[in-house]
Amino acid sequence: MIMTQQLQSAGESRLERGKRALAEIDGEAGHKVIAALADIAPDFANYVFEFPFGDIYSRPGLDLRAREIATIAALTAMGTATPQLKVHIEAGLNVGLSRQEITEVIIQMAVYAGFPAALNGLFAAREVFAARLAGHEPPASEAL
Amino acid sequence: MIMTQQLQSAGESRLERGKRALAEIDGEAGHKVIAALADIAPDFANYVFEFPFGDIYSRPGLDLRAREIATIAALTAMGTATPQLKVHIEAGLNVGLSRQEITEVIIQMAVYAGFPAALNGLFAAREVFAARLAGHEPPASEAL
Amino acid sequence: MIMTQQLQSAGESRLERGKRALAEIDGEAGHKVIAALADIAPDFANYVFEFPFGDIYSRPGLDLRAREIATIAALTAMGTATPQLKVHIEAGLNVGLSRQEITEVIIQMAVYAGFPAALNGLFAAREVFAARLAGHEPPASEAL
Amino acid sequence: MIMTQQLQSAGESRLERGKRALAEIDGEAGHKVIAALADIAPDFANYVFEFPFGDIYSRPGLDLRAREIATIAALTAMGTATPQLKVHIEAGLNVGLSRQEITEVIIQMAVYAGFPAALNGLFAAREVFAARLAGHEPPASEAL
Amino acid sequence: MIMTQQLQSAGESRLERGKRALAEIDGEAGHKVIAALADIAPDFANYVFEFPFGDIYSRPGLDLRAREIATIAALTAMGTATPQLKVHIEAGLNVGLSRQEITEVIIQMAVYAGFPAALNGLFAAREVFAARLAGHEPPASEAL
Amino acid sequence: MIMTQQLQSAGESRLERGKRALAEIDGEAGHKVIAALADIAPDFANYVFEFPFGDIYSRPGLDLRAREIATIAALTAMGTATPQLKVHIEAGLNVGLSRQEITEVIIQMAVYAGFPAALNGLFAAREVFAARLAGHEPPASEAL
Repeated sequence: MIMTQQLQSAGESRLERGKRALAEIDGEAGHKVIAALADIAPDFANYVFEFPFGDIYSRPGLDLRAREIATIAALTAMGTATPQLKVHIEAGLNVGLSRQEITEVIIQMAVYAGFPAALNGLFAAREVFAARLAGHEPPASEAL
Repeated sequence: MIMTQQLQSAGESRLERGKRALAEIDGEAGHKVIAALADIAPDFANYVFEFPFGDIYSRPGLDLRAREIATIAALTAMGTATPQLKVHIEAGLNVGLSRQEITEVIIQMAVYAGFPAALNGLFAAREVFAARLAGHEPPASEAL
Repeated sequence: MIMTQQLQSAGESRLERGKRALAEIDGEAGHKVIAALADIAPDFANYVFEFPFGDIYSRPGLDLRAREIATIAALTAMGTATPQLKVHIEAGLNVGLSRQEITEVIIQMAVYAGFPAALNGLFAAREVFAARLAGHEPPASEAL
Repeated sequence: MIMTQQLQSAGESRLERGKRALAEIDGEAGHKVIAALADIAPDFANYVFEFPFGDIYSRPGLDLRAREIATIAALTAMGTATPQLKVHIEAGLNVGLSRQEITEVIIQMAVYAGFPAALNGLFAAREVFAARLAGHEPPASEAL
Repeated sequence: MIMTQQLQSAGESRLERGKRALAEIDGEAGHKVIAALADIAPDFANYVFEFPFGDIYSRPGLDLRAREIATIAALTAMGTATPQLKVHIEAGLNVGLSRQEITEVIIQMAVYAGFPAALNGLFAAREVFAARLAGHEPPASEAL
Repeated sequence: MIMTQQLQSAGESRLERGKRALAEIDGEAGHKVIAALADIAPDFANYVFEFPFGDIYSRPGLDLRAREIATIAALTAMGTATPQLKVHIEAGLNVGLSRQEITEVIIQMAVYAGFPAALNGLFAAREVFAARLAGHEPPASEAL
C-alpha cells in the first residue's frame, strides 16, 4: 500500500491543509456539506476541515484508498450515517477505488453488522453510482 | 491493491474452502473460537467457516489486506465486539498489514465513531501487539 | 412452540431452499428486495437466499412465528434498519402472528432499547398494517 | 442548577402529572406524537405520559434545562432517533435553552459519537430553528 | 402461543405486580440486581419493578415464552448489555424455553446484527447453561 | 447556567490549552489515559488534548457542568464506552455536579436507551462513587 498522495505541505495551517484535502477527497459533495453548516454552526465547518481532513486524512502511513475502505466499512456497519456514507462512496471513487472494490467492502459488512446493514449500504452505493453515471452530483446536502 | 492470495480452488466445498481461509487469516485464534463453539452450537461453527470465510473472504475483487482494513475499521467503530476486534488485529498482521497501518485505521475511527471507540480500539491493539511480541497467543477464547 | 412448517426438503440446494423459504416468509416484499439487488450486487442476492433463508430460517428447532418475533424485536431495538423492519412486520403477518402480537413485541422494546426505538417501530407497523388494509403492497424497494 | 419548575403536585396521578409535564416540555409536538399513537397502540401513549413524563421528568434533583441537555446529547449520539431529537430540540427551547447552548451540546457529540452524528444533529437543529423562525410547527408526526 | 400465565391480579399495585412478575421470570438473578441498586438508586429499583415487570411483562396478548424470545433476540443484537442478556437467558429457561430454542434465537441474530453479536450471545448462553448445570446461580451482580 | 470557568487564554496553543483543560476536568484519570497511549499511539494523545479539550471543552457558550451532563448522558446511552463513562462521572464530580445530579442523568437514559443502559450506567457510577469515598483513584487505565 504505497502512499500516492502527498497531503502534508510545509508551512501550511491545519485549516488550509484540511481544505485542500477535503477538496481532493470529497470534491463537490464535501463543499456542499460545509456550505450547509454556514448558518447553523460555522465553527463546526472549521473543525471538519481541521480534524478529519487537516489532521487525520493528511497523516502518512495509510494511503487514501485504504482510508476510504476503512470509512466505507465503518459507516456501512454503523448504519446511522447514510448521507455521510454516500459522500464517502463518492470519495472512494475519487481516490481510485473501483465500483467493484466498494461493493466488496459493503458486502463484507454483512458478516460483521448483519444483512440489513449491507443491504442498506448497497442501496446507497447504487444511488451514488447511478447519479455519477448520469453526470449528476450525488445528493449531499446533509452529508460529510 | 494486488490480489496476492488465491482462495478459490476448483472442486472444494464451501466448508473446506472456509476452513482453509480461516486458518490462513485468523490462524490459531480462529481455531480457538471454533473449538469454543463445540459444546454450545457446533452448527454455528460450520456457518462461521462457510459464510464469512468460505463465501466472503474467498471472493476475488478485494485482497485480504483491504478486507482486514475494512473489518478492523468496522469492529472498532461498532464498539460491541472487542474479542473479535482482537482476532482481526491479529489477522491483519497475518495477512501483511503493519502495526502502523492497523493503528492508523483505528485512529481514523475517532472521526466516524468518536474518541472512545478509537481509544478502546487502540488499547485492544496494544494488547495484541504486546502478546505477539511476548510470543504468546492473543486471548481468543470468545472471539472470531 | 410446535414446528408447523417443513422447510427442509431432501435433495434441495441451499439456493433452492432459500428461494422457497423467502417466498413463503417475506412474500412479494422479499422478491422486490432481490430484484433491487440485480444491478448492483447480484451475488449478494444469492447470499440472501442461501444464508438467512436457506440456512437459518430453514433450521428446525424454532417455528417461523417465533423466528419473526425474534427478528421484529431485534430490528426494532437496533433502530438502523427500518425498511427491513417493515418487511418483517409483513412477514410476521404472513406466518401467522396477529397485529396485537406484533404490536406487543414492539412495545416491549421500550424497556430494552428506549421509548424512541419503540415509537419508531410502532409507526413502521402502523404503515404496514394500513397498506395491507388498503390492499397495497408495503413499500419494500430497499428492504429485506 | 436551581430547580425552577415544580412538577410534582399532591394527589395527582402519574397519568395526570405526565400529561401536564409533556404539555409543558414538548408542547404541540408532543401532542402530535400521542395523537399518532391512537390507532396503533393507545396503551403506549399512556406509558409515554406516565413513565418518561409522569415519573422521570417530574423528579426533583435536576432541572428541565439540564434534562433537555442530557436528552439532546443522548439522541444526537445514538443517531437512531432523528424525529425524537427534533422534538427535544424544540423542547430545549421551550424550557429555556438558547440556540447556542443546544448547538454547543450537539457539536460536543463529535467527540463522543463521531462527526457524522454531530453533523446530522446540527442539520436537525437547523430544521427546527428555521421552522420556529417561520412560525411553523416542527415536523413531529413520528416523534416523541 | 397460548397465554399460560396470569400476571394481572385485581387490586394489586404496579409495584406489587412487578415484584411478583420479576420473581417469577428472573428469579434469584433479578433480586440480586435490585439489591445491587439499593445504595446507588433505590428509586430506580422501583421503576424496574413497575414499568418492565408491573406494566409490560404483565400485559396480556403475548405469553412469557414469546416475550423472552423477543428480549433475548434484542439484547443479543444490541451487544451492549451482556449482563442483562445472561439474566434473560436464565429467565427464558425459567418460563419454559429449551436450551435449543434459546440457542436458535441467538444464532438467528447473525443475520441481523452480524456474526460477532451471535458469537458473543452464544458464549453468554454457554456460561449460563454451564452455571445452571453446576447448580450455581449465574453471575448477576450487574444485570437485569 | 453561568460560565464559571475561563478556559480560553490568549497566546496559548491548542495543545497547551487542551492539557490545562484535561487536567482541570478529568484530573488524574485523564493523565493515566494519556500515559497509556504513549507506547501505542503517542500522536493520538496529542489529538485527545487538542480536539476534545483544546477545542471543544474550551469553547464558551456552555459551562463545564452542562458539558459533563451531556457527556455522561451520551456515554450512558451509547453503552459502548464504560471506561470513558467512569472517567466522566469522576469529571462531573470534579466540575461541581453532585452525586444526585449524575444519578438523575443516568436514570433518565432508561427512557431513551432502555433500562439495561441505565442500569449499567448506575453500576459504573456506584463504582466511581465508592472509589472516591475510599480515597482511591477510579480505575482509569483504559479510559478517557
